[in-house]
Amino acid sequence: MAEDTRDSLVKVAMRAIYTSSYDSVGVGAITEQSGVPKGSFYHWFRSKEELGGAAIDAFADEGNRLRRHLLADDGSPPLTRLRRCFDHSAQLLERRQFRHGCMLGNLSLEMADRSELLRVHLSAAFERWEAALREVLAEARARGELQAHLSPEQVASFILNAWEGALVRMKVVRNAEPLRLFTEMVFDNLLRAPKP
Amino acid sequence: MAEDTRDSLVKVAMRAIYTSSYDSVGVGAITEQSGVPKGSFYHWFRSKEELGGAAIDAFADEGNRLRRHLLADDGSPPLTRLRRCFDHSAQLLERRQFRHGCMLGNLSLEMADRSELLRVHLSAAFERWEAALREVLAEARARGELQAHLSPEQVASFILNAWEGALVRMKVVRNAEPLRLFTEMVFDNLLRAPKP
Repeated sequence: MAEDTRDSLVKVAMRAIYTSSYDSVGVGAITEQSGVPKGSFYHWFRSKEELGGAAIDAFADEGNRLRRHLLADDGSPPLTRLRRCFDHSAQLLERRQFRHGCMLGNLSLEMADRSELLRVHLSAAFERWEAALREVLAEARARGELQAHLSPEQVASFILNAWEGALVRMKVVRNAEPLRLFTEMVFDNLLRAPKP
Repeated sequence: MAEDTRDSLVKVAMRAIYTSSYDSVGVGAITEQSGVPKGSFYHWFRSKEELGGAAIDAFADEGNRLRRHLLADDGSPPLTRLRRCFDHSAQLLERRQFRHGCMLGNLSLEMADRSELLRVHLSAAFERWEAALREVLAEARARGELQAHLSPEQVASFILNAWEGALVRMKVVRNAEPLRLFTEMVFDNLLRAPKP
């Protein structure tokens, strides 16, 4: 029950920050939407910033659960699974009419300069995501499916960052083209992966 | 004189938006810093949004002037000039302690969902930037220095987006690594360009 209250605050905050911005979200609106008395908020969090950090962690948890499922070995080649993982995200973004993008990217540009606490949570969230990519790329390397001059570490970091950039452009052109181009350039040109 | 007032408002707005955010900048602070009576602001701009659009255009103009200079044919190969152009930006970002990033990327994530006017200006600004990259890549293609399977159009768009993503990550890790990795992966691996 107690943990439910905290979870509920975090989930509502995550959703609110994701669909608008960190600045535009207030503790009052979060407690109201969660059905939690405003006074008890500070029992759970010392500040809005601490709630923001927890929302980042929760977003990263969700992403990691999804990726663990999508990247799990189902008999198809590692790079095929990796491509499917990005395709899945692209479909999700399309269903959201190419708005919102990625909460981590949005918060990075909005808050990394202004909150050391949020910056540290964002950094950790990206690092966890990168580790999942690195793992499947290392699997490709072990199976001889990654070109010899490419390192799993570098490729993982580069494609994660390039994906975040594709989302920046997507929000501006509001269509799937930056995502399609990302997949094509990364998988067909950089990695020369077999088409799924 | 009249145009000076408008220019001054745009320059002050550009700087303020770049170093903080669109939301945090008010018309009052802009007119005060520009030494312009607040009442006369609406002689020049119908709204803060219109000033924001002009600030985006001014930022794009500055970028284009710089790129025209850095990409101009000085006898070195097109891909060497292109790499130098990104290296130049990376040095600039380092001097700013990896804060702020790119005004276009910041505003895209902050405002593209919320202002159609700003979204259109951002889209045009990215398009102009992309055109400059496309031109130098077409030059490389004409000289046989771009691999046959790569198209200048696609590469220009992909690397511009990937650069914006490198800046997202840079703001979070606050070091040069994402920029260094961008250059290495794009020029050494994707384009296989000769080292400058």
